[in-house]
Formats: sequence, structure tokens, C-alpha cells
Amino acid sequence: MRMLDLIEKKKLGQELNHNEINFIISGYTKKEIPDYQMSAFLMAVRFMGMTAEETSSLTMAMVNSGEIVDLSSISGIKVDKHSTGGVGDKTTLIISPIVASLGVPIAKMSGRGLSHTGGTVDKLEAIPNLRTEFSKEEFLEIVKTTGICVAGQSGNLAPADKKIYALRDVTGTVDSIPLIAASIMSKKIAAGSDAILLDVKTGSGAFMKTLEDSIKLAEAMVAIGESVGRCTVALITDMDTPLGYAIGNSLEIKEVVDVLNGNGPEDLTEICVLLAAEMLFLANKGSLEECKQMVLECIKNKSAIETLAKMVKAQGGNENHIYDINNFENAKFTQEIISESSGFIEKMDTTGIGLSACLLGAGRETEDSVIDFSAGIILHKKTGDIVKKSDVLATIYTSSLEKCEIGKAKFLESIIFSEKEPSKKPIVYARVSKDGAELL
Amino acid sequence: MRMLDLIEKKKLGQELNHNEINFIISGYTKKEIPDYQMSAFLMAVRFMGMTAEETSSLTMAMVNSGEIVDLSSISGIKVDKHSTGGVGDKTTLIISPIVASLGVPIAKMSGRGLSHTGGTVDKLEAIPNLRTEFSKEEFLEIVKTTGICVAGQSGNLAPADKKIYALRDVTGTVDSIPLIAASIMSKKIAAGSDAILLDVKTGSGAFMKTLEDSIKLAEAMVAIGESVGRCTVALITDMDTPLGYAIGNSLEIKEVVDVLNGNGPEDLTEICVLLAAEMLFLANKGSLEECKQMVLECIKNKSAIETLAKMVKAQGGNENHIYDINNFENAKFTQEIISESSGFIEKMDTTGIGLSACLLGAGRETEDSVIDFSAGIILHKKTGDIVKKSDVLATIYTSSLEKCEIGKAKFLESIIFSEKEPSKKPIVYARVSKDGAELL
Repeated sequence: MRMLDLIEKKKLGQELNHNEINFIISGYTKKEIPDYQMSAFLMAVRFMGMTAEETSSLTMAMVNSGEIVDLSSISGIKVDKHSTGGVGDKTTLIISPIVASLGVPIAKMSGRGLSHTGGTVDKLEAIPNLRTEFSKEEFLEIVKTTGICVAGQSGNLAPADKKIYALRDVTGTVDSIPLIAASIMSKKIAAGSDAILLDVKTGSGAFMKTLEDSIKLAEAMVAIGESVGRCTVALITDMDTPLGYAIGNSLEIKEVVDVLNGNGPEDLTEICVLLAAEMLFLANKGSLEECKQMVLECIKNKSAIETLAKMVKAQGGNENHIYDINNFENAKFTQEIISESSGFIEKMDTTGIGLSACLLGAGRETEDSVIDFSAGIILHKKTGDIVKKSDVLATIYTSSLEKCEIGKAKFLESIIFSEKEPSKKPIVYARVSKDGAELL
Repeated sequence: MRMLDLIEKKKLGQELNHNEINFIISGYTKKEIPDYQMSAFLMAVRFMGMTAEETSSLTMAMVNSGEIVDLSSISGIKVDKHSTGGVGDKTTLIISPIVASLGVPIAKMSGRGLSHTGGTVDKLEAIPNLRTEFSKEEFLEIVKTTGICVAGQSGNLAPADKKIYALRDVTGTVDSIPLIAASIMSKKIAAGSDAILLDVKTGSGAFMKTLEDSIKLAEAMVAIGESVGRCTVALITDMDTPLGYAIGNSLEIKEVVDVLNGNGPEDLTEICVLLAAEMLFLANKGSLEECKQMVLECIKNKSAIETLAKMVKAQGGNENHIYDINNFENAKFTQEIISESSGFIEKMDTTGIGLSACLLGAGRETEDSVIDFSAGIILHKKTGDIVKKSDVLATIYTSSLEKCEIGKAKFLESIIFSEKEPSKKPIVYARVSKDGAELL
């Protein structure tokens, strides 16, 4: 088998078989196939696409390039959750304790943030002393005793995906639905859970800007999961507006606590109830409606917030920060952003707002950047709200006047006003399962 | 400027400007742009194409990556000729002396053969002691005193093209008309002539298998030439059947001599008369019809064959081989191929026949292969001929029984018989000039 022939085959739109895809992934991982052939192949895939069978073969070839986590010693159905990333997306830290408090074991590996999107692991580390790196044994032990552990991703899951993603990033081959789907699913499948819930974000702050593309991506990922025996469901949720009001690591943890205490923002609470219900449903805990009621109940009876506190403690963090959010350190520098315009907020360029938080110190511009956990933005107004001149649009948290000015400018250019009230958008657009896509 | 952004731009079908294309070619030549980005870019070009302006910019960026031959010290209009390559294509060695004998200076650089196609320089070197490598001064001196010199191509013409072609060859990005057109034209323009005649081959032995693609390629090349002030004309000629009856280096030189003596095969003579007339036309020697008459006359009055003999002598070769082709050494091993079938020859897989000659020792399988100048094939029957069982199809010339058997098997599988007489195909399909394509 020669890589050149496989590039030609894909270029002409012919389907590659399982062995051919394995040859490519294993050859590239072993450095037998050079970068220049791989990038030409990836560009051909970008143009010609991949069938469901090809995408599934690609995913499993990447899974098999590294370690596969064995969760079999934990009893029960293990359900994983993945979000394609957004601004203010702290759902993992809300729904994981909810679901764990209802008896579904959570053995979750999460990522760090880059550019405009935050990462769950960074948010967790805003809690003093909390650890996210564990040995395999420690990780399993925490799940067994506490029912939940949210750790950083092991470097050894799907190493082929890591190598291929780095190449895609510099060769203009990121925007391919089969490549995105295989990349996400390879890490989820290697992480060892039995079922997978996907939160596919759509809109100005998401990687997928249109509902159509978001559904295509969700369908591709569900097909991969089901083809390898993992029950997989995806919700297509809105990321045209930041989720909740808090953006930035400790600010977001405080909002997590608010939701689990039953007094969080409406949009964030609604989406978390739906996502948590889907996870319980995947764990066979009842019908979707029954699962929803269980979620509402465990927020009401405080068992969810108690589970979060237990998890924080088990991971070495100070659970008092959960019981009293005033324990979090405040940012050095705070400023209110006063509106210079009036009217309805018609649109928020959510990527722009994410970048604004990043400029304030809440995120990473490069992989080596150091995060300021207290930095970020609290929104006072969101899409659809009416604003008068001199109303407060948001409060900025940062470490210096200079960063404040840069972040504020970026924030302000991301808010688009209109005289007319914009139509209200749904929070969840669609649900994709093995039975197909259902618009909600 | 960042290469990644230019890959994205091309991928989305946007036009790159002159500076952007220069940035890519100069960056790649200087190794500032890595192979993996260049191959992704080339694959994007393969899918999205290039506008005429982009193709012209690409060509000139490659021209400017190396030396540009200065032919200004030679008086008169210098006309170059290029064939896209075929089997039995010895036209350059026929039309160059014809045109030179009529006062058009020929300062020509030619290539060597690879795989199934032969190369003019290899064919010339079948003449004992003949040199094809000269210093710049020697080359110009021979043209000035003899009116003609056919040399090997200097290594310093369009080095960017050489580097890019090597990458295309291993990344499945050869089959792109703008890339092929720019590659050919960059070398022709760097070679310094005033006008360019292109012989674009079409059919089973050509790189372009369909007339439609051949015309597209010709149009792209004519547009490039005209955009940089070189009068350029292309003939689309048949390569569905080998040209003439001789394939192999010294065998082809003998056929060259036959044509110049007025007793060559009909198809080869006809195509050479047309090509030579086009070259004279490009050199402003008269109307196409007048030029054709001049060509026929200089064959008749022997001035063309005498010019070839003078050229051979000026390049250090023995001109007695031109005056008497029996001076060429014979192959060690000769065998007639007897037909096992009867009927009309419906089709000759001309690439297969070229490879058969290559297996007999006439060509190069890799760049380092040594050529057996006396090896090759003399066809006795061609497409459209009627064949009886036990008729001689061809005579094979080689150095051993083993090579003979391998070459013979390849030859026989390349001949397709039919009971019906196939329809006769034209030798020249179309003429492409700045005024457009004209079917003939």
C-alpha cells in the first residue's frame, strides 16, 4: 500500500476501506508517512468528505493509537459529556454533580481553554488547591468513593488525533465535518464511558456558525458513537449569546454554585436541566420527562450542590468556596462598562466577547499563557435586553487599567444595537440521536 | 502575510493577488514555507483552480526563482517548441533543422525521458560523441555559427518549479491544469525565446487523455505566454497511437533522417510539416500556407537534412550517422512479434507500448537508469491496420532474451483487436492561439 495511491483515491472521491485508513493513521503516527502527504490527504478529505464508514474507521484508528481508559471496575452505566466549546459554558460543572447525585458515576476527563473559549479544567482550578491531575488508580478511586471526578485529559488518549490536529491547525484543514467528528469522538471513546452526550454549540460564539452545519456535525458524531456500540445523543444548543452572565474562571464557578442552589440565570439553568436529563436518560434512569423531574428535585433538595462540594474536597480543593462564594479572591481591578448607545441589543458577537475575557486575563492566547482566575466579565445585559444610555452593560474584572481598556474596547465592538426588539431565539434547537435529527 | 491565510483563501475559492503568489513561491523556494503547507495549498489549487491572472503570476514567480536565458545576442525571432510528451515523439529533431534551414535561429533546451515517454536529449545522445551539455557561451556560439543547437536543460531554469513538481509528484497534486500549465510555461519563458509553439498531445499515450482537457491545458498555456509578451500557439495532436513506426533512441533518429529525406511515415511527416509551418509563422516568415510550402521545399532540396548534419557536427557528433543510418550500432537481440490474433487493430494502449520500449532498455524506469540506445520497437502495424494471424506486428530490439520476453508481453497486452474497422482519427485536432481554440 502506498500513501500516494490513497491520496489519489480520496481526491477522486472514492471510498477508503478500513485497512487503508488504518495504514494512513498508523503510518502517520509512526512517522512513516510524512507531514506533506498527510496534509495533502487532509485537504482532499476537506473537499471530498468521508462516508460514515470511513469516519468511523478513522475514529477507531485514532482511538487505537493510544491508551483506552478502562472504567469497567466502576459499576453502573458511565455517561460522558462533551461540549464543542463556547463562551461562558460552565455546564459540565453543573450537570456532573447533578447526575452523580442521582447515582450515575462520573469519571470525566476535560480539556483546557484556548483562545476565546474557556476550559472546564481551568475553571475548576480557580478553586484553591484543587487538583485535576491524577494517576489512573487515584482517578478511579475518587470516582468509586465520591461518585464523581473531573480530571484533566491524559496525554495518552488518541495521540494520533493530537498529531493530526496540530497539522490541520496550520494547513487550513480544520473545517471538515468528518475530521472534526472523528477528532472529538476518538477522545471520548478512548475515555472509556458507555454512553456519550454531546452538546453541539451553534452561532457566533461556536465553531459551527450555522444550524445546518451543527446538525451535520452532530449526525456524524452520533453515527460514529453508535457504530462502535456507544449510545450517543447530541443536543444542538445556542451559542449566539454567552451562556449565563459570568465569563471567566472563578466568576463562572460562582455561577455554577448559583445554579446548583436554584438561583442561577434562567438560560443556563434551562440548558443544564435538559443536558442533565439527557445524561440520566442515557444511563437508563427513566423517561426524559422523569429524568427532568429528578434533576429539578436534586437541585431543590441540595443534593447536587453537596455532591459538588464533596467532589471539590475529594480533589484536594477547599469546599468552603462552594458553600460561600465570597471566599473567592476578588480581581485587583474592577470597572463598570457604561453604554454609550441606547436601544435593544440585537446581537452579541460571542467570539468577540470571549476574546475580550481572554484579553482581560481569563484565557490563554497561546498554550503557555498563565490564567488570571479572578479575571473576566459579568454581563448585566444580554441579547434582546433594552438598554438606555448610561446603563451598565457589564462589569469587568482584571489586574490592570491597561488590560481593562483593551478588553473593554473589544467588548464594546462586540455588542450590536438595534431600534427594533430582536426575535427571541430558542436555547436548544435540535436533538440528534440514532433515530435522526428532531428540531425542538 | 501568513501562508495559513493564503491556504484558507484559496480553499474558499478566492483569488490570490500577485504579491500573495510571489510570497508563496519565494517563501517555498527559500524554505520559509514548509512542505506540509505547500502540499495543502497545492491540493486546494487542485480542487479550486486558478484564474488566468493567478496562473500567470505563478508562472512568472517560478521564472524569477532562477536564471533567465538571454538570447538577445542572437539576431532574429527565436521560436521555442514544447511537446507535452508522448511515445515515438521525435518531432523536435525533425522540425528544428527544417526551421533552422529556413533562417529561424533555434536555441533549444530539451528534456530527458522518464517512464513511458522518451526525451529529445536521450535520442540525440544515441549519435556517438554528440554533446548536449554546453556552457552558456558555447551554446550561444553554436547557434550563431550553425543556426541551431539542441542542448540539455540547464539545472538553473525555474528551480521553484523543480521543487514544486517534486512535491506534487508525491502528494497527488499533479493533475491540475493551472499547475501543469505554469510548470511548462515557466521553463519555456525562462529559456528566453520570443515565441513558443506548444504540441499538446491527447489520447492514451498522453498525459491528457481527453480532447477537452487538452484544449483547456493549451488555452491556459497560451494565455500565460501572451500575458507576458510571448506569442504562443498550440496544436492539439493525437497520441492515441505512437507517432511514426519507431520507438527507441537510435531507431527514432533513423526515422528522423527518413522524414528529412522525404521518405518518412505519413503521420509523422504530416505532423512535422504542420508544426514546422507554425514555427515559421510565429517567426513572421509568411502565411501558414506559405510556411507549409517552404517546409516541403526544404525537405525536397535536402537543406533540412544538411542542417541536421551540421548541427550534429557542431555538437561533436559524427554526421556520417546522419548521411548513412547503417552506421548506427544494432541491438544485440532482435525478435519479430507474431500476431496470435486476427482482425483490425482497434486501439493501441500507447502508454503500455511506451512502457514496453522502456522495459526493453530504451527508457528510464528511475532517474538513475542507464539507457540502451539501440533498444526499442519498430511497429509493422498500427491502429486501423488489418492483421492476419502470423503477421508480424512489430520487431523488438533489446539486449537479452529475458528483456525481450518482458517487453513483448507488455507490448501484446497493449494491442486491442476488433472485427470492425475503427474510424480514422485525425492527426491534429485543434489549434489554440490568442484568438481562441479552432477545431481542425
